[in-house]
Order: sequence, then C-alpha cells, then structure tokens
Amino acid sequence: MRDLSAGPSLLSVNTATVRKQAGLLEIIEACARHGIAAISPWRDQVAAVGLERAARAIKDAGLKLSGYCRGGLFPATGEHVMAARDDNRRAVDEAAALGAPCLILVAGGLPQFARPGSTPSKDLLGARTMIEDGIAELLAHAREARLPLALEPLHPMYAADRAAVNTLAQALDMADRLDPGGRDLGVAVDVYHTWWDPDLYAGIARAGRDHRLLAYHVCDWLVPTKDMLNDRGMMGDGVVDLRRIRRAVEDAGYTGLIEAEIFSDHWWAQPIDHVLATCVERYRSVV
Amino acid sequence: MRDLSAGPSLLSVNTATVRKQAGLLEIIEACARHGIAAISPWRDQVAAVGLERAARAIKDAGLKLSGYCRGGLFPATGEHVMAARDDNRRAVDEAAALGAPCLILVAGGLPQFARPGSTPSKDLLGARTMIEDGIAELLAHAREARLPLALEPLHPMYAADRAAVNTLAQALDMADRLDPGGRDLGVAVDVYHTWWDPDLYAGIARAGRDHRLLAYHVCDWLVPTKDMLNDRGMMGDGVVDLRRIRRAVEDAGYTGLIEAEIFSDHWWAQPIDHVLATCVERYRSVV
Repeated sequence: MRDLSAGPSLLSVNTATVRKQAGLLEIIEACARHGIAAISPWRDQVAAVGLERAARAIKDAGLKLSGYCRGGLFPATGEHVMAARDDNRRAVDEAAALGAPCLILVAGGLPQFARPGSTPSKDLLGARTMIEDGIAELLAHAREARLPLALEPLHPMYAADRAAVNTLAQALDMADRLDPGGRDLGVAVDVYHTWWDPDLYAGIARAGRDHRLLAYHVCDWLVPTKDMLNDRGMMGDGVVDLRRIRRAVEDAGYTGLIEAEIFSDHWWAQPIDHVLATCVERYRSVV
Repeated sequence: MRDLSAGPSLLSVNTATVRKQAGLLEIIEACARHGIAAISPWRDQVAAVGLERAARAIKDAGLKLSGYCRGGLFPATGEHVMAARDDNRRAVDEAAALGAPCLILVAGGLPQFARPGSTPSKDLLGARTMIEDGIAELLAHAREARLPLALEPLHPMYAADRAAVNTLAQALDMADRLDPGGRDLGVAVDVYHTWWDPDLYAGIARAGRDHRLLAYHVCDWLVPTKDMLNDRGMMGDGVVDLRRIRRAVEDAGYTGLIEAEIFSDHWWAQPIDHVLATCVERYRSVV
C-alpha cells in the first residue's frame, strides 16, 4: 500500500469540489499552490474559459489530469439521441485535447431525466440497453481519439435520474461485452457510489485483473446524509472504510492518482484554501 | 399474472403507512371498512394497545396478516448484544402470538446505529458478520416457534444506519448458508429497496425456486426524492415498473398478499380514508 503521508503527490482534486468558490483558472492556481498533483475538470468550467486556455493553464501550473468530467447521459428518444451522440463525441475530443487520461462516463438514468424532452418511461432495463448502445457507438470515436472511457457506476439512489449503471459488476459486465479483452473501456471506482456493495472487493479485484481500473475517487458517506446530491463528506468525516478500499484498489494493481470529489453544500461554503488544505491533510492521514 | 382489478382481496396495508393518522385499533377498523384483506403491524403500535387486544381486534375485523414489523438490528457490541438477542426473541414470540406468517427482519447497519451505545465502527464487513451471526442465533428460536423469518434487503442508501443487507442476492446467499434447503429463513422483496438492482429479476426467480419469497411490498420511487427516509411514493406516482416486477414475483410462484408500505410525510398528512382509498385504487389499477 502506498504511503501518502509525505504529501499530495498522488492527489487529484475534482474541480467540482470547489466549483462554487472559484472559476477554473483560480482553481488551477490554488491546487498548484497547495502542491496538489492533479485535477479533474468539468466541461462547463473548461468551456467558461475556453479549451485552449484551460489546457495551457493546466500545463503551465504543472498539473496532471486524473480524468475529464464528463460524458454519458445516454438514454434518449427522438432528436435527443443524435444530440447526445454529438455531445459525447465533443466530450471525447475535449478530453483528448486536454491530455486527460480518460473521459468519465455517467451513464444517465431514464430518458426523461438523462435528456430532458425525451419520452418519459419507467423502462429501466430499456434505459440500460440505451446506455450500452450509446457506449458502443461512442467507443468507436474514442478509439480513434485514443481516449479511454471510464464508466462510473453511480449509487443506486441515482438509478432513475442520473445513472442506471449502479454496481461495479454491472459496469464490468458491460465493459466485457463492448470491449472484450480490451483497454478502451474501463471503470471509475468512487467510494461514495460503491462502498455499500457486497461485491465491491470482488469487483475491484476483477477490474484490476482485467486492466479496467482507470480512476479512483474518494470522499465519505455521512450519517445522516441530509441531501441525496450535495451532502458528501470530506474523507474521514463519514463511515467509509477508506483504507480498506484503497488497499484493495492498490492490491489490484492500481498505481494512478487518487481523486477527491466532494459535492457538498457545507464545503462549497468554505474558503477554497481551507477546502484544499483539508483535502491534503485528509489525503495524508485517512485516505 | 393475477387480476387485481376486482378489489383488494390480496391487498395488505403496512400500518406504518398511516401511523401518523391513527392508532392500531383505528387502523384495523379503517382497513376493514375499505375491504382491505390484511395488515402488517409494527411492534410499537401493537405494544401501545397490548398484544392480546391487538390479536383479538385483527381477528374480529376479519383481517389477515402479511407480516410483523420487525426484528433485526443485529450489529451490536457489549451489553447491547444480549439486549438485541432478547428483543428479537420477543419479536418472534409476538409474531407467533398474532398469527403472522413471518417476522420481517431489517438487518441493521453499523453497530453504533443499529444499537446506539455500541462501539462506533466503520467495519461494514464486520457488521455483516454480526448480522449473519444474529440471524443464525434467532433462527433456532424462530424454528421452535414455527415462525419463518423474512430478511428484507434495504436500499443501499441505508447501508450505514439501517441495514447492511442491501441486495436480494446477498440476502439469499445468507439464507442459503443459514438455512440450506430450508423454509425457515426467506426474504421480503420491497420494490422501493430493490427496483434499481441489475440482478433483481434473477434474484426473484432464485427466491421463488428456493421457496424463499415470503413477502412482497410495494410503493414507488419518486423523482426527485426529497427525503431519504420519508418520501416514498404512492404506487403509480413514481418510476418503478410495478407490473413488470409483480409479474416476475408471480412467475416465480408467489401467491401471497401484496403489501403497501409507504413512509411519506405527504401521505401522513392526508386523512386516513383518503390514503387507504388511494392504496386500493392504485392496487387495482397500477400494481
């Protein structure tokens, strides 16, 4: 197990963690100031400053990338199918232009939530078929761009409105079907989404064995969780056994960055330097 | 698939659905008035009127039972272990005295939440071992009382504080280990907790094949869900494909009652007759 105590040389901060406090350029500067190794930026933040300027600022600050957020939201009907396809291709191209190691895919839930305006449906199995079809199509484009796709299973509480891919096993099964023996479609393991899963450790081992572990995200699960979307905990403040999960991830061969991704009204209300300093401190002591 | 349109002859109402509006005796009377076939009462409601009086009122009203709520909350440390054991044995005895077909088991999460005062822990796997040990011990008592136990997997969003048994497969695996080939430990399938599960249909078929389908609970999943605990939807108001799940349950051989269990601040604020009439109408039209 890697020793993280010396400093944040493997720490990445997902820029949504401080999205209420600052724009992308300021976030980049602040992360560099705290010695943080990398970021994972969001498309809207990149768009706000322009792709080239964002790429240059990241490079100038000496930051790496742990991913690019995000593609996906595949379930759609009517004209939204084509719009989703085009949007996802642009996401791949942007990730490649930024030099990101992967594009994070959030699958999308039922079509009326994934792509508003689509025909409402309760057909969760149908949505999963749309997801698989959508990834299959995007994969061809991603291969041309030499940009791996990282499918991120989301917590089951988001199955309806955010992602109908809800377990690591489900994501890996999909990857096996779409990218057999390959390295173009992997998974992102986020403790918030997966910590509860009885098959988590088996899934991590499988993902490692099959070279599909493309990203590892940390935060914490608070009790009580007051908001299903924006009440994630800072590492160490909740009940997730972070050390045990990281050990499993590293035992499975993962040697990449560790990305802190915290959607939290509490932390969005704190000064950016306090949030980043806390991320670094917790990364060193409890992750 | 059974035709429910004629009337609520297979409908059970979990008494928590109207717990804010009335006490048990009034709920019994109201359910009988609406032609509802059965109830599933809670221990605190029974205790408030006394076990014998509750049993007599249920019988006098001509109501069946679909279950008794609830035993479980196994993870504990120190003196709380024995207290949990004794409490669960009493729950079995009460269920038997009432003539309930099964005792619903909610497994409990981490020990500090399952049995407050227990030593705090982040060891989810350890909690699961405590659950399995607790069920094993309770099973001996339940067999003597000839009272089947129905382990209910709860939604993963409750893994920390309510139940660390979170998928049907996990519950069935546990049942296979503790009650191989037996009929003393089964499962309760609740659409709210399981609708998202990629393995739901496989799990239902397996549960049926192994004669472990002891209870079937319905409500709905709302989007957005405003509260993790008390914002369940009335059947038909959410995104759950109720017909598809019931078809699977009945194809798996289930011939029992269909229990409406709705924890909802919205429905608790409605008059009891409106809630029960709506349950009956939705049972006939969308369940």
